[in-house]
Amino acid sequence: MRAAVLSGGGIIVRDDLPEPVPGPGQVLVQVKACGICGSDLHFAKHGADMLALGQQMEGVPRPDREPIDLSRDIFMGHEFAGEVLEAGPNTEAPPAGTAVTSFPVLLRPDGAVDPIVYSNHVYGGYGERLLLSAPLLLPVPNGLSTDLAALTEPMAVGLHAVNRSRIEQTEKAVVLGCGPVGLAVIGALKMRGVTSIIAADYSPARRALAEGLGATDVVDPREETAWARAGAAGPLVVFEAIGVPGVLDEILRYAPAQSRAVVVGVCMNADTVNPYFGISKELSVQFVLGYTPEELAASLRSIAEGDIDVAPLVTARVGLDEVPWAFEALGNPEEHCKIIVEP
Amino acid sequence: MRAAVLSGGGIIVRDDLPEPVPGPGQVLVQVKACGICGSDLHFAKHGADMLALGQQMEGVPRPDREPIDLSRDIFMGHEFAGEVLEAGPNTEAPPAGTAVTSFPVLLRPDGAVDPIVYSNHVYGGYGERLLLSAPLLLPVPNGLSTDLAALTEPMAVGLHAVNRSRIEQTEKAVVLGCGPVGLAVIGALKMRGVTSIIAADYSPARRALAEGLGATDVVDPREETAWARAGAAGPLVVFEAIGVPGVLDEILRYAPAQSRAVVVGVCMNADTVNPYFGISKELSVQFVLGYTPEELAASLRSIAEGDIDVAPLVTARVGLDEVPWAFEALGNPEEHCKIIVEP
Ligand SMILES: [Zn+2]
Ligand SMILES: [Zn+2]
Repeated sequence: MRAAVLSGGGIIVRDDLPEPVPGPGQVLVQVKACGICGSDLHFAKHGADMLALGQQMEGVPRPDREPIDLSRDIFMGHEFAGEVLEAGPNTEAPPAGTAVTSFPVLLRPDGAVDPIVYSNHVYGGYGERLLLSAPLLLPVPNGLSTDLAALTEPMAVGLHAVNRSRIEQTEKAVVLGCGPVGLAVIGALKMRGVTSIIAADYSPARRALAEGLGATDVVDPREETAWARAGAAGPLVVFEAIGVPGVLDEILRYAPAQSRAVVVGVCMNADTVNPYFGISKELSVQFVLGYTPEELAASLRSIAEGDIDVAPLVTARVGLDEVPWAFEALGNPEEHCKIIVEP
Repeated sequence: MRAAVLSGGGIIVRDDLPEPVPGPGQVLVQVKACGICGSDLHFAKHGADMLALGQQMEGVPRPDREPIDLSRDIFMGHEFAGEVLEAGPNTEAPPAGTAVTSFPVLLRPDGAVDPIVYSNHVYGGYGERLLLSAPLLLPVPNGLSTDLAALTEPMAVGLHAVNRSRIEQTEKAVVLGCGPVGLAVIGALKMRGVTSIIAADYSPARRALAEGLGATDVVDPREETAWARAGAAGPLVVFEAIGVPGVLDEILRYAPAQSRAVVVGVCMNADTVNPYFGISKELSVQFVLGYTPEELAASLRSIAEGDIDVAPLVTARVGLDEVPWAFEALGNPEEHCKIIVEP
């Protein structure tokens, strides 16, 4: 089987990988489309740092499995959609040919749960075929094309962030960063009925996408900050969708008193903040990650029913051979937003 | 009039200060007791840094008054209780001799509002007399002594933090730091009916106070961390009542997934955090400051009605001449908790 894999810090294409074989409860799926996620770019570059940070952290259940070995091939691709090929033994599943996506974990017959995100042994969406879990499959409705269904996962990230923010329709939202995550937040805010959505990004192309998804104001931070545009509006609900050091302290410094920040951009670096700003203004910071299975299903529904138009986010479609190029190209925000791999 | 003032970074006693004269809406009060707050110690040492940080911050209304001039005398003392001496012109107020405390702001006849905290011109509680605002006076009930009534303010800080945390009785609380702020948090948690309160402090004396106020478990972090004591308890509600760099990152690193942190310890320094920990575990951080007038009144009531026993917190009572000594002595947590100035 062919797949683009992370090997020694770079993306290469293997064409001699063993075919995946579905076990009980599993389904073999032909990948039709898989979005490239910013976190994959980051993992490719800084995987060792990420794994080391994870080791320092407590308070999460330690998975009972071997740690990821960066010296071996790593399979990635968690924003996938595909077609059912066949079900494993004694497994109820939609008929072959059904278009599906899924919560990105693989349930093993022994009860273990493997994330489909970075793995030495669980295939992801950057390959021709992968295994999914029959109970987690989400059939794609309304004849939605699989390349748009592949945007279900990134849109769910935004929906989850907005749900966790508990924002009311009358509250003012500020979205810092209009990459795929920020755009997903904007789309979810619009669907929630929030009437004031200020979005900030240096890239004119991304600001245009933000407006398309529902931002009511867009700003180029070189010319005007989101804080200035919001004016003396009272507390804001601020979505940090940039994920680089310094943004959190910018929020603490400039957000109006009683504002709530939701950190959805994954900053992997240590960051310096001034708690004094947060204290003086009684700010709060909610870190968020992922989404629930219900949010993933809601996200698929909203795309299929046309409540959110994700088509403009797709700036390129590439085959497996072009994945290495795509990882490079995504470095330029003016050129690309979401690149879909069609294996 | 005599008062201990901050002058050139040190505390000195002046005995030739002009007598305060109550204007309309104001009341002249004889100070009977005023607690020394950790924030006053910090301001004495790092006032210039604090004022500079405040200047960098936006999103708070800029007070329409002259900035504090550190080269002149600064009046402090916001944890006061006293007795009414006389009311200003056309001012309704409790009769002379009534024991009172107040929300620490002075309403000016021109409508301006001056905090009674650090000021070049508004007297605080480290002096013989000060002006309070008639509408904000809280008469001290039940014959409570003024030196215990002076603990109303620090206890209100803890009550506010606990209210903002929205902690449920069945949730587990962790309190890092058992200085006056941490102890106030513990007292408020107990009154709220929280049944698991783990408190951490290096000082045996402070751990003993924590137990007295309602901590169900105390730990010496040199021997066992609060995280270890909590075990695999699920999400915690963590109160950061230390306020030194590094504690926030410790919380992000060790708190279980979905925990909520409430930062009530004022850390004036820039601090380094790893957002990755917060994101991976979906933690939240609520910064809190101060209290509402209702919380201040509730705090006074709970002390006067014996719901919370604050007497053990008072480790010394001093006159104005000993305030410089008290500022030094509070550096030793084993020796002192709350020192009350009786001018
Ligand atoms: Zn993703
Ligand atoms: Zn205080």
